[in-house]
Amino acid sequence: MGGGEIVSPGDYEVARHLGALIAKEGWILLNGGRASGIMEASARGVKENGGLTIGILPGTDPDWASEYIDIPILTGIGLARNYVNVLSSVVVVALPGRTGTISEIALALNIGKKVISLNFDLGPLFERYEENKQLIYAKQPEEVVDLIKKLLESNFNKEVGE
Amino acid sequence: MGGGEIVSPGDYEVARHLGALIAKEGWILLNGGRASGIMEASARGVKENGGLTIGILPGTDPDWASEYIDIPILTGIGLARNYVNVLSSVVVVALPGRTGTISEIALALNIGKKVISLNFDLGPLFERYEENKQLIYAKQPEEVVDLIKKLLESNFNKEVGE
Amino acid sequence: MGGGEIVSPGDYEVARHLGALIAKEGWILLNGGRASGIMEASARGVKENGGLTIGILPGTDPDWASEYIDIPILTGIGLARNYVNVLSSVVVVALPGRTGTISEIALALNIGKKVISLNFDLGPLFERYEENKQLIYAKQPEEVVDLIKKLLESNFNKEVGE
Amino acid sequence: MGGGEIVSPGDYEVARHLGALIAKEGWILLNGGRASGIMEASARGVKENGGLTIGILPGTDPDWASEYIDIPILTGIGLARNYVNVLSSVVVVALPGRTGTISEIALALNIGKKVISLNFDLGPLFERYEENKQLIYAKQPEEVVDLIKKLLESNFNKEVGE
Repeated sequence: MGGGEIVSPGDYEVARHLGALIAKEGWILLNGGRASGIMEASARGVKENGGLTIGILPGTDPDWASEYIDIPILTGIGLARNYVNVLSSVVVVALPGRTGTISEIALALNIGKKVISLNFDLGPLFERYEENKQLIYAKQPEEVVDLIKKLLESNFNKEVGE
Repeated sequence: MGGGEIVSPGDYEVARHLGALIAKEGWILLNGGRASGIMEASARGVKENGGLTIGILPGTDPDWASEYIDIPILTGIGLARNYVNVLSSVVVVALPGRTGTISEIALALNIGKKVISLNFDLGPLFERYEENKQLIYAKQPEEVVDLIKKLLESNFNKEVGE
Repeated sequence: MGGGEIVSPGDYEVARHLGALIAKEGWILLNGGRASGIMEASARGVKENGGLTIGILPGTDPDWASEYIDIPILTGIGLARNYVNVLSSVVVVALPGRTGTISEIALALNIGKKVISLNFDLGPLFERYEENKQLIYAKQPEEVVDLIKKLLESNFNKEVGE
Repeated sequence: MGGGEIVSPGDYEVARHLGALIAKEGWILLNGGRASGIMEASARGVKENGGLTIGILPGTDPDWASEYIDIPILTGIGLARNYVNVLSSVVVVALPGRTGTISEIALALNIGKKVISLNFDLGPLFERYEENKQLIYAKQPEEVVDLIKKLLESNFNKEVGE
């Protein structure tokens, strides 16, 4: 997860590198699917490394999908699709974003998903979830991958099945 | 808006008092509709003062609605209904809550709604919206009502039409 | 329920008359809310007789609501809102329409709602539901009102609570 | 598309055979994803022939997905997901079903999708769409594949992009 807004070149490259690592692990990337910002960067990193990408789009027009999305799911339900994004994910990784990303983090935590925040400081508002280890901070894409591996090994929730 | 979780007696009474003021203004209360926490308290305050309440419920079972809800809208779309809540509101008032409430605040700001936060400190994560006055803090229900009146008078957005 | 397409003057007047009867019974009309066709006609009939109307709109723009809708619920979830319409209704009344109306009839029957079809012949496709009396045909608005009264009296499902 | 209800062995084998043909063409199967009826049969046929299957599930529990679904999308929006199914499909193929299937056919026609009905007689209710060739009947899975090929070649709508 991460914003579709204008992103800094640094954040763009971090997202792209995370995508590359996800592809190398053989995991599937699912995100909001649009052709902008962190969404595009992470999907691009996956595709440049032979992985599979799914985009859960808010609208009804397939042209809104990034060129790096293999499978566009056109929901037509607007931002209500943020709920679909987090429900359909085994682990949610949050990159710097704005309100769209924050809504996804909040929904993910609400339904019991683990959230790994990569360089996105959520501040005191989410401290409760940091304390119970539902929300975990990471500083590097490699750290995110290690955390996901540990979560998958620990059979952390029954949703783990991909 | 506000959580369905266990709330402090103080927050409960503030929400109930806000409901009373809303009813006295002749405004309609729209919230998540469930029989718990801030949702129930605000609806109760409205009904005790002859107002009208609408509950946008996540599930398909009308028994989930609070007894203080006049018109239960059963969406059956789970937490995706949080998007419907904020879209259908002229002004969004946030009371202390957890991730459900935070997701609504984030979605409301995302779609350009004004959000009044009553005693719910959102911290640095939402500072940007505080600065541009899309997010406004209030300390008393009376202050919320005054803010809403000013917003309505200023014809602050085209959604104002109830 | 009924189409938003161009309707015959006859169907328009039948819908408007049904709205009038609904208002006189003190029932609430819930429909798709748009300013066209059967939706507008039924809401108009209700408002001309002092009743209350709720419109479950597909989009995010309140200007799409008919002027005869008291409470517009802006879902932003497109045609997925047809599911919300039937879930939130105690009894579903179908008037002549096209695919939007047919989808609502099918969804209503799917979730166990009673459907009264007023002059809308659904043909052999829905015969199964006619046989088990989940789908009932009527020829006059007055007949629809009588059928609804009988259903409400028989406490036909637990959703009856408005 | 097709029902999740108990199906005849004949319909089951037709759906499975259609799945096999879809896999051989290299197309992706998208359906409702549940472990029953036509949905399971078509996904099974695809997987037995090395294809890729996506299931758009109504609920939040991944255990509801058929074992033949590669990518379960958990929408959590109930039957509102029928809208997502048809929006995300390039061509909609309907097999014998009940109200769930009929709602999908109606929604697909409503949003302008081509619908191929394989041995599912929709009767006079949908005649209008048969006449304008938006709804096409087929009797064999091979015929469905030929029709889809012709539609894809004719660049029949801008959604064709898979």
